[in-house]
Amino acid sequence: MKPKLTVVKIGGNVIEEEQKLHAFLNDFAQVAGPKILIHGGGSKATELSDRLGITTTMHEGRRITSKENLEVITMVYAGLINKSIVAQLQAFNCNAIGLSGADGNAIKATKRPVNAIDFGWVGDVEEVNASTIDILLQQHITPVFCAISHDQKGQLLNTNADTIAAEVAIAMSSHYETTLVYCFEKNGVLMDVDDEKSIIPSINGSYYEQLRAEQVIHKGMVPKMDNAFHALNNNVAKVIIRNANLSDTGNNNFTSITL
Amino acid sequence: MKPKLTVVKIGGNVIEEEQKLHAFLNDFAQVAGPKILIHGGGSKATELSDRLGITTTMHEGRRITSKENLEVITMVYAGLINKSIVAQLQAFNCNAIGLSGADGNAIKATKRPVNAIDFGWVGDVEEVNASTIDILLQQHITPVFCAISHDQKGQLLNTNADTIAAEVAIAMSSHYETTLVYCFEKNGVLMDVDDEKSIIPSINGSYYEQLRAEQVIHKGMVPKMDNAFHALNNNVAKVIIRNANLSDTGNNNFTSITL
Repeated sequence: MKPKLTVVKIGGNVIEEEQKLHAFLNDFAQVAGPKILIHGGGSKATELSDRLGITTTMHEGRRITSKENLEVITMVYAGLINKSIVAQLQAFNCNAIGLSGADGNAIKATKRPVNAIDFGWVGDVEEVNASTIDILLQQHITPVFCAISHDQKGQLLNTNADTIAAEVAIAMSSHYETTLVYCFEKNGVLMDVDDEKSIIPSINGSYYEQLRAEQVIHKGMVPKMDNAFHALNNNVAKVIIRNANLSDTGNNNFTSITL
Repeated sequence: MKPKLTVVKIGGNVIEEEQKLHAFLNDFAQVAGPKILIHGGGSKATELSDRLGITTTMHEGRRITSKENLEVITMVYAGLINKSIVAQLQAFNCNAIGLSGADGNAIKATKRPVNAIDFGWVGDVEEVNASTIDILLQQHITPVFCAISHDQKGQLLNTNADTIAAEVAIAMSSHYETTLVYCFEKNGVLMDVDDEKSIIPSINGSYYEQLRAEQVIHKGMVPKMDNAFHALNNNVAKVIIRNANLSDTGNNNFTSITL
């Protein structure tokens, strides 16, 4: 039997608020067994860009990444946020190590081809180096990834954090029975977006189609769900969508995605 | 017999110039055997501070580090510069991993006590985690450290890069026969600062005293020399001061520091 591994993705809005992030990291540090954290960047990169007079252009919720944007992202995601998370986890006795995809050649990507839209320095994940990540886990070290990959030719690339979380979980599933946890601002996938108690306990493929058709699931939730099914279709054992309060381990407090 | 290890510190001025840095990293990637890189930050942190309207205060060449300064340093050193170096080394087939002292709890420091001067968020190195660094080296991974440590209570601390290089070299000397190489803008310690050919081939303790008394060695060179002797006095096998052109392996192109 494979050992268990937990891969947690924490989104932007928790990272934006110091106290929320601290509470989340306290919870994450207490997750038993080997684990990996993937974090987004939230609005901090846009804030720094604004202060520096650098334009931020979004297309359908995705950042178009100019050379200057990439520099800001590298500073904010790989520098400020990643190291702040690592230092806090160390204080909680979680031996974290902060990584971009370039570090240890952990996440190799290719620059997204220019079609209708030129996304700039954005990368699509090609290969996750499970062996190097596993060396760290074997030493009871917890990898903390920011959402930056590289092309192995010297170029860093901006990459969606939900996608990195799914790809890391998939790659690690050759060594581990992996649970992928997407933490976000809601309590789970909600039947009524305004009612935090209306958590849908479980969604399988056909129910997902129905919920999409009924417009219960739409917008930003769609790529997250697609990542979840992509993970399940590629040997990830379990995918959960929930809030950031990991210490709340009740059975009705999250949405479980199943095939 | 212990295996050999090379610890290289690269200073600010090479980092400031893209082409010089690229050439240096090409050379560094070709250094045989296990190796560690420590990099400074140069003027890039000050530049970003200026753009953000954040004041930079120096005291005898050392930065007084406010909370805002520390954020800028973390963005520039641990983010922009560290990840750019790692991505370039990966392109040269050197499997680099970029670290701050918080990552893997690699470099623990204490905040410098406030005496005549309050240096702010500056750390003095207390302990280097040689075992964790050695795990990476054993896997043919090359650690690349920026000059940031942590206090293991959640606080990142700005730390002098020359000092980090010496302390890392000292800690690794329990496992390795370590050579510490300080690369800087000159060809070595010069008898005449304006004559790049006037390299002093070797300096021992008593000669150092003489050169200081004669004011041949002064200013910024003094702490570097003190770090060099500190390393030699603590089991580092060899200390060299030289330019960044590591591919120039001639015998008369550097200063060797000896006890």
